[in-house]
Amino acid sequence: VSVLEEAQIKARTLVEALPYIRSYRGEVAVVKIGGAALSEPRLAQILAEDLVLLSYVGVRVIVVHGGGAQISKAMSSSGAEARFVGGMRVTDDAAMEQVQRVLMGSVNTELVGRLNSAGATAVGLSGVDGAVMTAQRMTADDGSDLGRVGRVTDVNGPFLESLLDLGYLPVLASIATSSEHTTLNVNADVVAAAVAAATKARKLIYVTDVAGIYRDFHVKDSLVSEIKADELEALVSSLDGGMRPKALSAIEAVRAGVSKVHMIDGRVEHALLLEIFTDAGVGTEVLS
Amino acid sequence: VSVLEEAQIKARTLVEALPYIRSYRGEVAVVKIGGAALSEPRLAQILAEDLVLLSYVGVRVIVVHGGGAQISKAMSSSGAEARFVGGMRVTDDAAMEQVQRVLMGSVNTELVGRLNSAGATAVGLSGVDGAVMTAQRMTADDGSDLGRVGRVTDVNGPFLESLLDLGYLPVLASIATSSEHTTLNVNADVVAAAVAAATKARKLIYVTDVAGIYRDFHVKDSLVSEIKADELEALVSSLDGGMRPKALSAIEAVRAGVSKVHMIDGRVEHALLLEIFTDAGVGTEVLS
Amino acid sequence: VSVLEEAQIKARTLVEALPYIRSYRGEVAVVKIGGAALSEPRLAQILAEDLVLLSYVGVRVIVVHGGGAQISKAMSSSGAEARFVGGMRVTDDAAMEQVQRVLMGSVNTELVGRLNSAGATAVGLSGVDGAVMTAQRMTADDGSDLGRVGRVTDVNGPFLESLLDLGYLPVLASIATSSEHTTLNVNADVVAAAVAAATKARKLIYVTDVAGIYRDFHVKDSLVSEIKADELEALVSSLDGGMRPKALSAIEAVRAGVSKVHMIDGRVEHALLLEIFTDAGVGTEVLS
Amino acid sequence: VSVLEEAQIKARTLVEALPYIRSYRGEVAVVKIGGAALSEPRLAQILAEDLVLLSYVGVRVIVVHGGGAQISKAMSSSGAEARFVGGMRVTDDAAMEQVQRVLMGSVNTELVGRLNSAGATAVGLSGVDGAVMTAQRMTADDGSDLGRVGRVTDVNGPFLESLLDLGYLPVLASIATSSEHTTLNVNADVVAAAVAAATKARKLIYVTDVAGIYRDFHVKDSLVSEIKADELEALVSSLDGGMRPKALSAIEAVRAGVSKVHMIDGRVEHALLLEIFTDAGVGTEVLS
Amino acid sequence: VSVLEEAQIKARTLVEALPYIRSYRGEVAVVKIGGAALSEPRLAQILAEDLVLLSYVGVRVIVVHGGGAQISKAMSSSGAEARFVGGMRVTDDAAMEQVQRVLMGSVNTELVGRLNSAGATAVGLSGVDGAVMTAQRMTADDGSDLGRVGRVTDVNGPFLESLLDLGYLPVLASIATSSEHTTLNVNADVVAAAVAAATKARKLIYVTDVAGIYRDFHVKDSLVSEIKADELEALVSSLDGGMRPKALSAIEAVRAGVSKVHMIDGRVEHALLLEIFTDAGVGTEVLS
Amino acid sequence: VSVLEEAQIKARTLVEALPYIRSYRGEVAVVKIGGAALSEPRLAQILAEDLVLLSYVGVRVIVVHGGGAQISKAMSSSGAEARFVGGMRVTDDAAMEQVQRVLMGSVNTELVGRLNSAGATAVGLSGVDGAVMTAQRMTADDGSDLGRVGRVTDVNGPFLESLLDLGYLPVLASIATSSEHTTLNVNADVVAAAVAAATKARKLIYVTDVAGIYRDFHVKDSLVSEIKADELEALVSSLDGGMRPKALSAIEAVRAGVSKVHMIDGRVEHALLLEIFTDAGVGTEVLS
Repeated sequence: VSVLEEAQIKARTLVEALPYIRSYRGEVAVVKIGGAALSEPRLAQILAEDLVLLSYVGVRVIVVHGGGAQISKAMSSSGAEARFVGGMRVTDDAAMEQVQRVLMGSVNTELVGRLNSAGATAVGLSGVDGAVMTAQRMTADDGSDLGRVGRVTDVNGPFLESLLDLGYLPVLASIATSSEHTTLNVNADVVAAAVAAATKARKLIYVTDVAGIYRDFHVKDSLVSEIKADELEALVSSLDGGMRPKALSAIEAVRAGVSKVHMIDGRVEHALLLEIFTDAGVGTEVLS
Repeated sequence: VSVLEEAQIKARTLVEALPYIRSYRGEVAVVKIGGAALSEPRLAQILAEDLVLLSYVGVRVIVVHGGGAQISKAMSSSGAEARFVGGMRVTDDAAMEQVQRVLMGSVNTELVGRLNSAGATAVGLSGVDGAVMTAQRMTADDGSDLGRVGRVTDVNGPFLESLLDLGYLPVLASIATSSEHTTLNVNADVVAAAVAAATKARKLIYVTDVAGIYRDFHVKDSLVSEIKADELEALVSSLDGGMRPKALSAIEAVRAGVSKVHMIDGRVEHALLLEIFTDAGVGTEVLS
Repeated sequence: VSVLEEAQIKARTLVEALPYIRSYRGEVAVVKIGGAALSEPRLAQILAEDLVLLSYVGVRVIVVHGGGAQISKAMSSSGAEARFVGGMRVTDDAAMEQVQRVLMGSVNTELVGRLNSAGATAVGLSGVDGAVMTAQRMTADDGSDLGRVGRVTDVNGPFLESLLDLGYLPVLASIATSSEHTTLNVNADVVAAAVAAATKARKLIYVTDVAGIYRDFHVKDSLVSEIKADELEALVSSLDGGMRPKALSAIEAVRAGVSKVHMIDGRVEHALLLEIFTDAGVGTEVLS
Repeated sequence: VSVLEEAQIKARTLVEALPYIRSYRGEVAVVKIGGAALSEPRLAQILAEDLVLLSYVGVRVIVVHGGGAQISKAMSSSGAEARFVGGMRVTDDAAMEQVQRVLMGSVNTELVGRLNSAGATAVGLSGVDGAVMTAQRMTADDGSDLGRVGRVTDVNGPFLESLLDLGYLPVLASIATSSEHTTLNVNADVVAAAVAAATKARKLIYVTDVAGIYRDFHVKDSLVSEIKADELEALVSSLDGGMRPKALSAIEAVRAGVSKVHMIDGRVEHALLLEIFTDAGVGTEVLS
Repeated sequence: VSVLEEAQIKARTLVEALPYIRSYRGEVAVVKIGGAALSEPRLAQILAEDLVLLSYVGVRVIVVHGGGAQISKAMSSSGAEARFVGGMRVTDDAAMEQVQRVLMGSVNTELVGRLNSAGATAVGLSGVDGAVMTAQRMTADDGSDLGRVGRVTDVNGPFLESLLDLGYLPVLASIATSSEHTTLNVNADVVAAAVAAATKARKLIYVTDVAGIYRDFHVKDSLVSEIKADELEALVSSLDGGMRPKALSAIEAVRAGVSKVHMIDGRVEHALLLEIFTDAGVGTEVLS
Repeated sequence: VSVLEEAQIKARTLVEALPYIRSYRGEVAVVKIGGAALSEPRLAQILAEDLVLLSYVGVRVIVVHGGGAQISKAMSSSGAEARFVGGMRVTDDAAMEQVQRVLMGSVNTELVGRLNSAGATAVGLSGVDGAVMTAQRMTADDGSDLGRVGRVTDVNGPFLESLLDLGYLPVLASIATSSEHTTLNVNADVVAAAVAAATKARKLIYVTDVAGIYRDFHVKDSLVSEIKADELEALVSSLDGGMRPKALSAIEAVRAGVSKVHMIDGRVEHALLLEIFTDAGVGTEVLS
């Protein structure tokens, strides 16, 4: 690429990006981080830097994370056996203690540290802090007991917004508080959608390990770049297991007033910036 | 006690307490919780309720805690061996991961839940959150390496104060962030004093398992009810091991502008309320 | 009472009082002072101190007073003869001048001075000041002329509230202004109820010379501790003369939105504090 | 005067007055009312209307008054004998009660009513209210006891200013409070000067019964229209008795930072408006 | 006129004017300047001074002007020929350039300079500035093309008000911007009415070269001092050509909520002040 | 350029630009427009769009312009002869009228319209408006009279800043007001520097018809990309005539606290955006 060509592309990028930058200023973007972007240090670092750049130009970023892989690893190393019913971890009191320790003491703390080292001032939270997220116990679809597993019932939007107002970047782990002030294990994809709805987010972005939603998972060409919530609903049952809660949460978020939900590939560098600030979106966009 | 006598005592208590209540409104009180008040559920519950009552009448309460006993227990149950040099835990990376998990995932979360169930809206924090507390690595007095152990260098008072302004009750675990954005294990007594100094606290209160400071630890009569920082300094070397960091921190806090530091007995119910709102203090008061 | 018992009662009193203190902060309490608490120096002094303590913890206190006994004394000493029709003082222009002089120049000034010496900054007012209370001339029930006697038609709540906002304690004498800008003599019990309604007071308290309302005035045991406005209305005709305007005003105040009206005994020391800040109310409480 | 001439004078008056009106907006003017303007209803009414017009265009008016004639009349009618030492009323406790009653119950109340009927919302005050004016006991020049007579030591400017901010017109009687919270009788001319100094008044105006200050009281031509404080000081001893405290207060006020002090004739209609809003002053102006 | 008579008239003028001054404080007055008051330096200077005096006492003045005579002169001196259809100037692109240059570069700049030299801080504007006035192209009544001539469609009231809030006096020339961001020539009388409506003006005043509206233009006695909009509408067709757009605009303004519209004679000195601040209005007043 | 390469350049541009965008938010940038960017419609349009994009991301843009070429053309077409002494236009009253008409009625109005059509809300100003720029008459270096030509003495920064606060984009023509409220012709390069100093601008940018400053004007390779003010001063005498006032103004601006002054080539599309938001500056940068 010649210097002149590069200068032209740069100028075009700026002309393209500045109106987006203006339009996202002061808007909330909820970013759910999962997969490689959470566990692979180099990708995690680039994503952290992108999130900080977003906040530099006034986007109010909230990060949500779970940590299934990390929990499983900790439990297996302590000899405990993970048990799943219908894709959900059965969580007794001892397991819940493990979940809390891994999510708050390891995953969350590391994420906060990474964001701070990239220039943010992040604040790690579980749903207990500031009573920011409440849930109620749920059972598996077959009615069997799941232990300390919950369904999110309420998110304290004003608390998150006041942290944003103060210039802090909230990082929320998927642990909720019950009405009896005990902790419950909740699904991080659902948390992200509930947080986006409660903070009237302009964007909800799932950073995953796939390129987006495929009409037919086995056909690489069938990647969907834009899909309406209603259409997506018809597609859900045919989706890959890990994509299903994201898709359902995306549908719910769009119906709760979040303008746009994106699924982007966390393995592509700077996918987040390109998605938000250029005309050519990446991954799949869900809209109402 | 007759009804009339009780009414008289009640009236006297109110006449005594109301001016204190007025004078503490809007003032910061830092409460370091340790010992039985941290580990014994019934005492922990009463203390949580007292802290909430304090906040009801406008005292801006910040709670600080460590969790040495809980960490030791977790490490021993995972087969790791605790090693101490000069009273300080030698903390390698694996141990630090354990420290974070126990303090943030268990002790802090439980304390926050307890305060919330008593009526507060508490927010659990480590020093990484909001970069609220930074430290630098320290070595033992004999120069030997302590691993991830630090000396507190800075506390972000404005962040804590903004949480207080929003009506939240901060609960801070004794984990700091280094200038390289790694975590360090720090002494909770020292943390409490640094927090008190950074927030211009009117009171710093250590809730411990003893009645206060004794001039001679073996003589029950020698309990000190009031002592100047200079005098206490002369006494430090003769103090019981656990009391020493509290005494040194108290001296430092007083010299940094905290009006009064108290050592009170966490095993006595409502000692905190009686200390703050009545003429007859309990435990030992350190002043400048 | 042992030291330990006293400490326990004190702790219990605080646990009991702190939620009340929180709940009354910023609320308006209108206190009508009459009888011994107005005329007997020692009781007057204790009451003034209690009122100042109330204001210390953020209760917005407004004091209302009349001064029938003092007026009668001044008039008789100047040779004028008091004339009453249906319990109301017939007030010609000369008498009105006397009323103003005694209430504003003596009773009000003394009350303001007493409150100031107890630590408040009180401001004495008649209804003419700031046009704070307007009235229109009324006749006796039998239609006979009462001269310069009026029925309260309006209270300037915002003026009283702005004094409270500035930290002043208003002390209002029972003199109103007419729409023609002449002064009128009004009943202080009615004034207190009108002030409570206009300032959306949380409490209206009549400090009198009796223990409260008796179902049967001759039966000491029949003291009522709590009564609904409707019930009280049925009882009014059987009440003692001096109690009747208080009862009628209490009913009207409750119906105008004042949460609770109390009749307490000004001869009991600190009855006001015990009434407001402890579970065991004293005297009679009227509620809707 | 022809219609055209009148229109020309009117236009000229407006061109002359508007810059004054602008320049006095938001400024404090203290007006001490005495003599005929206080006691003769028609003049009192016109003055009240002028004061209200002043406040209409944003002048922050504070009225100060005494009431020597009214007090003497009340005392003589109650058979008490007035006693003066060096021009000051000897005031025992009974006399002080009379002073308070006449000033607060009659003179002040009437003045407030008059201003209100002219369109203001006036608030009557003695120095006890809001602790607005404190004094300490003084003796006569010959050292003899004067009883409850005081020298003004402090005026609470912020309280008066907050009433002005709220749109109220303060009317202050010459009664002060001592540091022991008793009342003291003070000279109203001195009060006016102290109030002007405490509120950084732009003008202090004495409304009296004479045309102004005469170089030689017996020579009508010797009326002074403008005089410096130093010059006036040299003249004081030759002044008429009633003029002396005004002259001394004027000198003190000018030296305390009040820009201009005026003596105007209360018997001339609208003298106040002409003095403030036209080029041709009336009466005597004292400046630094 | 004797000194005494003059003093009496002055006092009367003040008593008359002060309530008006109060009532116009903070109100918007739109003044359309035309005729001699625009072109004759001495009259222009007196009017500028009156406008500044108005602003001194808080009237929020907006000035509107055209400049037909000045434009015609400039065009004829450059050899261009003015063409009118139905009283409206046919404006091709070259003529529009001339219109802009004369109005903005000469008339507006001179008016702003004159107001500034009288003590204001004026800001000259065309409708392009701050997009303060938009118009759409119009044709003559007979359908013939008028070129760059427009009908006012919108006035940006908040922009004018924010300039007034900042203490500036806006001076608006009769040039509008179209929705395609080209300039259009508009009628200044209509502009004044639209500005008055958009800023909720209390008064709209046309300064013209006639004494007001005559019922019969040939009968000097038939000058109308007050007329309702409906009545005026019936009269419009009989009016002199130059008066017609003023009359129609006045009717429209009154119907859009402007309280009063005045036609005053710019050749009479200080007519503006007399109109606004005295009981005897001058010229013709149109009301709803 | 491949799609992938383009995506990489875009991502790199964003990573590069976002910190600049953050750092310029809320900062003032003064842009002096001259040459082709003023007179050639296509370039003028692109520049207007770039200025609007700047304002979109919070840069507070102020535009300054002259119009020498346009004035000369207008004068010659009206038969007047331009006369220059030492590079400055001799300006008699008739010429000044022409200058005002061309600058305000044509150049300024067109620039404002262009910016508005690109999405801004621009406000055209001469120095007379809001008394935004004052000057005093100057003579040529040889002492000969220049007529209505001035040297800028003061710029009203707060007025410009209040327009920026309100979201308007000020466009200032090079006409000043004298202390006698007459207009003066001033040099636009000097105006830009004075405006930058008065508004504490972060950047002052001269958009010209050359690539920047050349050490040797005849050697294309000698283009200077960065130069200190002191160095530039030594170079001034060797510069091209048109560059000299820019260079001198740049030096003055840097010394008055403007961080950086740039000379960029208005004939290169989007040079402004590339200069401000990318690492590779274009043209010449002058710094202290």
